[in-house]
This record gives sequence, structure tokens and C-alpha cells, in this order.
Amino acid sequence: MAAILRLVLDIMVPNNVPLDDLTVKLASVGGAEGVDILVQEVEQKVQTAKLTIEGVNIDFQGIKKVLHDFGASLQSTDRVSAGKRIVG
Amino acid sequence: MAAILRLVLDIMVPNNVPLDDLTVKLASVGGAEGVDILVQEVEQKVQTAKLTIEGVNIDFQGIKKVLHDFGASLQSTDRVSAGKRIVG
Amino acid sequence: MAAILRLVLDIMVPNNVPLDDLTVKLASVGGAEGVDILVQEVEQKVQTAKLTIEGVNIDFQGIKKVLHDFGASLQSTDRVSAGKRIVG
Amino acid sequence: MAAILRLVLDIMVPNNVPLDDLTVKLASVGGAEGVDILVQEVEQKVQTAKLTIEGVNIDFQGIKKVLHDFGASLQSTDRVSAGKRIVG
Amino acid sequence: MAAILRLVLDIMVPNNVPLDDLTVKLASVGGAEGVDILVQEVEQKVQTAKLTIEGVNIDFQGIKKVLHDFGASLQSTDRVSAGKRIVG
Amino acid sequence: MAAILRLVLDIMVPNNVPLDDLTVKLASVGGAEGVDILVQEVEQKVQTAKLTIEGVNIDFQGIKKVLHDFGASLQSTDRVSAGKRIVG
Amino acid sequence: MAAILRLVLDIMVPNNVPLDDLTVKLASVGGAEGVDILVQEVEQKVQTAKLTIEGVNIDFQGIKKVLHDFGASLQSTDRVSAGKRIVG
Repeated sequence: MAAILRLVLDIMVPNNVPLDDLTVKLASVGGAEGVDILVQEVEQKVQTAKLTIEGVNIDFQGIKKVLHDFGASLQSTDRVSAGKRIVG
Repeated sequence: MAAILRLVLDIMVPNNVPLDDLTVKLASVGGAEGVDILVQEVEQKVQTAKLTIEGVNIDFQGIKKVLHDFGASLQSTDRVSAGKRIVG
Repeated sequence: MAAILRLVLDIMVPNNVPLDDLTVKLASVGGAEGVDILVQEVEQKVQTAKLTIEGVNIDFQGIKKVLHDFGASLQSTDRVSAGKRIVG
Repeated sequence: MAAILRLVLDIMVPNNVPLDDLTVKLASVGGAEGVDILVQEVEQKVQTAKLTIEGVNIDFQGIKKVLHDFGASLQSTDRVSAGKRIVG
Repeated sequence: MAAILRLVLDIMVPNNVPLDDLTVKLASVGGAEGVDILVQEVEQKVQTAKLTIEGVNIDFQGIKKVLHDFGASLQSTDRVSAGKRIVG
Repeated sequence: MAAILRLVLDIMVPNNVPLDDLTVKLASVGGAEGVDILVQEVEQKVQTAKLTIEGVNIDFQGIKKVLHDFGASLQSTDRVSAGKRIVG
Repeated sequence: MAAILRLVLDIMVPNNVPLDDLTVKLASVGGAEGVDILVQEVEQKVQTAKLTIEGVNIDFQGIKKVLHDFGASLQSTDRVSAGKRIVG
């Protein structure tokens, strides 16, 4: 089976969640080699952000679990790359 | 005969289809080396997306079959590259 | 005599022509190393597209013949490169 | 545990703080390999700036302490990258 | 004496002149290594185009002669590069 | 102590100061490897310019002294980079 | 003393001056390795152009002399780079 190489996700994170802790934890999920959280908009209680994960055979369920554990939510999947190399 | 090296397609995908599963399945089609799905617009029941496939001698029929199996539809072909190397 | 290295052409293609077949056939013309068809606008019966061909000593007559065989027409020549290396 | 590789922070700095001293001090924090301060807007008493730090296993607490020691304040965290390589 | 390495010229070409023939002929002028003709605007009887020539010690008189032989005219010189390497 | 690697400064220079002399003199300051002066606006008696200096362990006081010796003034510090490598 | 590595100058050139001759002559000035003249605006009797010269230890006086010999004039100095390497 081909492997997930990159995920770009829209997430919503409570403002009291330390983004560095969340990012480091996401980077420890199976298959993740690099994780980037880029804040898009800060609202009263939450902020929306673009989450990019690159790696080989990324464990999407593991990503979702970490988000849930931090009280963050997955708003939508923007982009998925799979196969032997990233294209597009 | 020269080989298809890249396809860029406009597709429509039901919102209940997991994009990671669809992308991974497309990446297992004959000739595909990398597959990328980039969501364009999310509507009530479906989302439109740009599907990019790169490889050597990509099996277009196989791509169409996977899309059909997931309930997704090919809206239009945006770009096709063929030959010994990608140009343009 | 110096050789044609790249052609960029505006073409019009009937909507019932499979673009992958047309692209693969163009890529088999003498001198063509890579062919790309990028759709510009889809109208009721035809679509306009930008056709890019790179190679060495590209057989322009052969390109025109394939277009004609598929019922496509050459609208205008946008760009021509010739010599030992592509410039501009 | 995965390591912080890049931090992009919005900071506010009193106008009497020499930016070269602040930058050099930030670059001596554990894990920091390169630090860049880019001034965004100069107001009457303070200026806002974008602070970028790249390195391996950057000590975020140490960064915050240096900012505090200079009378500067962290306004918000714009971006965090972690893992084995920077992505996004 | 330093050598001309690149010329960018505005030219006007009658519509009945095959651009591939003109480009190939220009590429055979002394010193020319690569020639590119990019059509700018197509009018009723003529088209304007940007002609780029790169090489070493390009024979500008030879270029002008070929343009004249094809019934094309040099409108203006946009850019000239000379020396040991192209800059700017 | 970490070293200054790049300074970007807004300066104001009297119109009778030869910019080539000023640039060459700035490039001889300790730690400077490359200096660039880019004129922004020319007014009646002075011109504003962006001064970029890259090097290792740039002597900021030495830069200020040269500016002063030429009758130029430092308007503001736009950007400072320090550490082992330039980031941002 | 540090050396001039790049000059960007605004010049005005009478329309009857062949730009290829002027460019080639400028490229023979001491220290010049590459010269580029990019025409900006063509007026009734003169054209304005951006003149870029790269090299090592460029002889600015020699450049001015060539401009003067061709009846061209230096309008303003846009940019000067000096040192061991070009920055900015």
C-alpha cells in the first residue's frame, strides 16, 4: 500500500494550549518527520491554524488523537500527498 | 508509444470520503509515483479538488476506476504531460 | 541548420477528443522529448489549450499532422525557440 | 521527544533597546543557531517586530527570559516547527 | 573588445512569415547560441514579438539582415548585455 | 557571544556624498564582507537609502562612525541577524 | 581598500547612439566583467535606461568617461555594492 507523505490540515486550537508543546507532540507521532503550525487567526478563545506534517507513512489516527488530547479540533483536510514522492 | 508522465484533474468528492484513503489508493495505481489532492471548495455534500498524479506510464483508466469506486467523479482534465520528461 | 528546441502553440480541441491520447501521440512525433497540454477554456463543443513541446529538432509538420488527425486546430504560434540551448 | 526547530514570534520592544544587543543575546540561548529580528512598525515608545529563531531543540523558556530581561514582550506565537526537519 | 552576450529586441513580423523558419534562421547567425521569439500582439497584417538572442559575440548586423530578408523590422532595442558574463 | 551576521539599516545621505566612496569605506569596517546601498528616494538635499551589511561579527559602532564621518545619519534599524547562520 | 562589485545607474542616452556599441565599450572598462543596458523609456530624442555593471574593483571614473564620450549622461546612482561578495 502507498504511504501518506504529507498532510495539510485546518485546525482550531484553544488559546491556552502552548503551541510549542502541541507541535513537539505531533512530531512524535509515527511516520512524522517534520511538523509546522502556522497561526492564521486569533479569536477570543481559540485560534485557527494550518498544520503541515511531512514524513513517510504518517499515522493520521495518531495525529487526530494528539489534537484531541490537547483539546484542538480538525476543521478540514486541505491537502493529502501519497506515494513514493511528493508532487503538486 | 510515449508515456503519460503527469495528469492534473478536477474532481468532485463526496464529503464522507476520507481523502487520505482515496489518495493512498490512487497512489497504488499502475505508473503512479506521487499523488496529491488539494481541496478547492467545500460545499454541502461534496468538495471539489485538484488531483495531481506524476509517474511513468500512468494508467488513466485505473485512476478513473479508483475515483468511481470511491464515489468521486472526474469533472475535467486540466493538464496532461507525456514523453520522456515533463515540460511546460 | 539550427534546430527547433521548443514550440508553444494555441490550439483548439473538440471536447470528445481524449487529451491523454492526443498528448501521447504528439509526444511520439520526431524530435519531441516532452509534451504538455494545459486546458485554458472549455466551451460548448471545443476547448482551447496551450500546447508546449520541447525536444531537439522538433518536426513541426508532424505536430500539425497529429493535430489535424485528431480534429484539433492550430490557432496561433505563441513562442518558438531554436539553436543549441533554450533562452528567454 | 521531538525538538523545536523554528519559532516565529511577534514581539514588542521598547525603542531604547539596542536591537543588535537583543539579537545577539537571543542567539546565545540554548539550541538557537540563527536569530533574526525584523522591525514591523515603529510607534512612539515601542516597536513591533517579527522574531525568527532557527536551531535544534530551541529553549523557548530561555528565549522568553531574554525578552523579559530586555523589557520586551512576546505578543503572540506565529509559527512553530518541530521534528527532524523544517517543513511548511 | 568585449563581446555581445544577449540582445532583446522588439520586432514586427508579417503574419505570413513562418515563425519557426525565422527563428531557425536567426539561430544560425554568427555567435547566436539560442534564439527565442515570443509573440506579443497579433494585428491584422503583422504581429509584434520580443526576440531574445543569447550567445557569444553575437553578430548584430547578421541578425538585422535576417530580419530584413524575412520582411520583418526591428522596432527597438530593449536590452543589451556584453562582457564575460550576463548580468542584470 | 553570538556574532552579528547581517544589518539592514535606513540611512539618510547628503546628495553631495559619492555613494561609491561611502560603500567602499563601509565595506572596510571590521567584520563586513559585503555592503550594499540601495537608494530609495532622492530629495532636494539628501537621499534616503537602505544599507545592507553582511559578514561575521560586524562592528556596528564602526559602521556608525563611517556614516557619521560622511555626514550621513542612521534613521532606523530595520533588521538584525545574529548567530551561526542567517535565518528569516 | 574594499572593491566595488556592482553599480546600478540611471542613464540618459541620445536615440542615435547604438546601444550595442555603448554596452560593449562599457564592458571594456577596468574591472567590469558584465554590463547590461535595459531601456526604460524612449522619448523623442533620448531614451532613459538602467545600466548594471558587475565585476571586481570597477573603475567608476572609466564608466563615466565612456558615457560622456557617447553623449550619454549619468542621471543618478541607484545602487552600489562593495566588499568581498555582493549582498542585498
